Amino acid sequence: MSDQLIQPRTLSGFRDFLPEAMIPREQLMETARRVYRSYGFVPIDTPTLEYSEILCGKGSEETDRQMYRFMHGKRDVAMRFDLTVPLARFVAQHHNELGTPFKRYHIGTVWRGERPQAGRYREFAQCDFDTIGTTSIASDIETVLVINDLMRAIGFEKFTIRLNNRKVLNGVLQKADLADQSVLVLRALDKLGKIGSDKVKEEMLETTPATSEQADCILQLAEINGTIAEVLEQLGPLCDGNELAQQGREEISQVAGAAGSVGLTDNNLAIDVSIARGLDYYTGTIVETFLNDLPSFGSVCSGGRYDNLARLYSKQELPGIGASLGLDRLLAAMQQLEMIPPTRTTADVLIVQFEPENLHRYLGIASDLRRAGICTEVFPDPVVIDGKFKSKKLNQQFKYANRRGFPAVIIAGNDELATNTVKIKWMSDGTETAIPLESDSAGIVEWLRNKFN
Amino acid sequence: MSDQLIQPRTLSGFRDFLPEAMIPREQLMETARRVYRSYGFVPIDTPTLEYSEILCGKGSEETDRQMYRFMHGKRDVAMRFDLTVPLARFVAQHHNELGTPFKRYHIGTVWRGERPQAGRYREFAQCDFDTIGTTSIASDIETVLVINDLMRAIGFEKFTIRLNNRKVLNGVLQKADLADQSVLVLRALDKLGKIGSDKVKEEMLETTPATSEQADCILQLAEINGTIAEVLEQLGPLCDGNELAQQGREEISQVAGAAGSVGLTDNNLAIDVSIARGLDYYTGTIVETFLNDLPSFGSVCSGGRYDNLARLYSKQELPGIGASLGLDRLLAAMQQLEMIPPTRTTADVLIVQFEPENLHRYLGIASDLRRAGICTEVFPDPVVIDGKFKSKKLNQQFKYANRRGFPAVIIAGNDELATNTVKIKWMSDGTETAIPLESDSAGIVEWLRNKFN
Repeated sequence: MSDQLIQPRTLSGFRDFLPEAMIPREQLMETARRVYRSYGFVPIDTPTLEYSEILCGKGSEETDRQMYRFMHGKRDVAMRFDLTVPLARFVAQHHNELGTPFKRYHIGTVWRGERPQAGRYREFAQCDFDTIGTTSIASDIETVLVINDLMRAIGFEKFTIRLNNRKVLNGVLQKADLADQSVLVLRALDKLGKIGSDKVKEEMLETTPATSEQADCILQLAEINGTIAEVLEQLGPLCDGNELAQQGREEISQVAGAAGSVGLTDNNLAIDVSIARGLDYYTGTIVETFLNDLPSFGSVCSGGRYDNLARLYSKQELPGIGASLGLDRLLAAMQQLEMIPPTRTTADVLIVQFEPENLHRYLGIASDLRRAGICTEVFPDPVVIDGKFKSKKLNQQFKYANRRGFPAVIIAGNDELATNTVKIKWMSDGTETAIPLESDSAGIVEWLRNKFN
Repeated sequence: MSDQLIQPRTLSGFRDFLPEAMIPREQLMETARRVYRSYGFVPIDTPTLEYSEILCGKGSEETDRQMYRFMHGKRDVAMRFDLTVPLARFVAQHHNELGTPFKRYHIGTVWRGERPQAGRYREFAQCDFDTIGTTSIASDIETVLVINDLMRAIGFEKFTIRLNNRKVLNGVLQKADLADQSVLVLRALDKLGKIGSDKVKEEMLETTPATSEQADCILQLAEINGTIAEVLEQLGPLCDGNELAQQGREEISQVAGAAGSVGLTDNNLAIDVSIARGLDYYTGTIVETFLNDLPSFGSVCSGGRYDNLARLYSKQELPGIGASLGLDRLLAAMQQLEMIPPTRTTADVLIVQFEPENLHRYLGIASDLRRAGICTEVFPDPVVIDGKFKSKKLNQQFKYANRRGFPAVIIAGNDELATNTVKIKWMSDGTETAIPLESDSAGIVEWLRNKFN
């Protein structure tokens, strides 16, 4: 063994998750799983490493450049940079076993060697759900409902799901004979918020063959806003005369109508005809989700409908729709909105230790409490002298309880046990309550359940 | 877009997890998390990639050779091959923030480029829990209790936790002046089951300076068996006269005694003085866990006490104890014991679709059921014609239900809805029950709850 210590450090852009960060992170993933499952989505996983040919050239030039790619023996391999490309490979490979429609969720780590900066990491988690093998609008509707349930289950009430349909803009561009100009038109439209409509119109006239009327019409479309009903009404005349645009409007109307039927209305749903997302990829419904209190965080859950997921790997045509929950962004937002309690324990109760001969009693109470679903820690560090426990001083044990953030501490020294009671200290207000100690700890369980509910 | 399809395939030794494999896998991980949390263990995570100097030379020569190691820019990096080395680096780096005792669990993927073979993969999950920064026997006791709760929560009743303490054998070797011969003695003892005690004694006499009496004494130790009380009794005279051996025996006795006090007795706990595990690493308590019905699967949960976790990264002395649940091995065993139902859905109920104008009704029922905690899928693939749903033929929808394994299907066509009822088909016996449809679906919820409980 060398005397030289190795400096303990992590790679730039990579993170250790300490308990106070990992506890809410795990809870968020569990909430997502619970909501996905409640709709019948099933989990899958794919390897971290794929043959490079599976991943290269599937995202953007940027993702290729940022890929962790290396030779393993004679194999050219790479770490996945998202969960969508592996999904495409997966359904192409297992199509017959899976059957369609296939509804899957996938929570997994992905890697991108981008320049580390505030809030950007080289290793992060994605949390996707997709319905593959159907063009049914029922899946579009479900996607919006899942997002709504997700946001509420996580604890948000003030959020807005923005809904659009690529067919509307594409149809309006068709109508104006500008279908092949969509990239340039969108590039100009993208600046609407910053430079205003006059300048955007100027740019459109310069960079595309649009006439002044056509540019006005497109601007009119992008500037539509209001309630769901108002936007749908304004969209009517703009879409008239083009089948694609009308179809897009009809799909938006059906999604919004069905969402309304289960209580998702203007409070949390808006039609936003200005959102476009993933220009070349999405072909129908598009969704983004914004926090009303933190709009600058950008979308925390986004997705849309695509025509053919696995075209690079299979002749099987696989249309679908999916969305991705932005875990890291959501956690950052929850932190900022003080939605995450600063806890460092997963347990509800700490049992402090006194006399060594009572350890079996403490273990018995802990066992009863756990059986009743109450997470219980027995103070883990009594000192051993001559093969016997000596408890640490009570103030050290309470320091541990405070530092970790246990809501309750159970005190059962010889005095308490002699009268068949325990004391429960409720840490937030310091009150102590004596509870009779029965053989199955029923009184303690009941008292704690009342406090926790 | 090239016409040439890319062959969808995975790297040798890497796996796709299809839903029927991933559903029980996720459930197993969730069970482990629930049990770990019930004892106050907290989750952490560490990066997949570390500086190579952190990982190299920390396991065996074999782990070094099997490591996925590559250059990322100018950085020499490697993928973690276990969760223990990253834990050592982690606690060395964050010691002050964490405080001790520190109880953590970590479920994560690790990579080893070993030769793929049946049941061996290059990418697999580990599921560890450790208590760091205490020498207290209370943690040894807790480790055994956690394993017991884990096995029961997973669904096993017939298992045996084998308990030993390295101090016993080390003490007995000290007594025989053979302390520096432990590797050779253990190598010989390891063959006890195969070649019998006479041959083992021969080998000991050949390869070590042991006398015939010493060899007999060691063999006597290794061959002790019986109930906990019997083994402890037989250990008495063998440990007499050596402090280390006596201490080991006392620790075994304390762990077994405390376990017995919460009901973990001879049924599921045995003292097995022949187990040694990780010769150079463990220093006290050692545990292994075997399935009584599948002993050849080897240990499914193993661990032990160590003296100084982070000595390569920190001057801080960090003793601890931990164990690791063998996820893949357990899943294989559960498969073989037919403990895993062959389900491909996470939902309890499928609502089939009839008339398009009823979709909002179906969404409403599904929403009610989800709110009551019943996972519900609305058949995702009605056909759209003229912008309106047409339901797929009922037999296609039932084929989907059968293939996925939904326990129940809700049927609500115009006939049913006209009389404010739905029919629930219980798939395992094919019975259909008519239930009144209330505005909050309370009757359906109640009927299903009764069926599921």
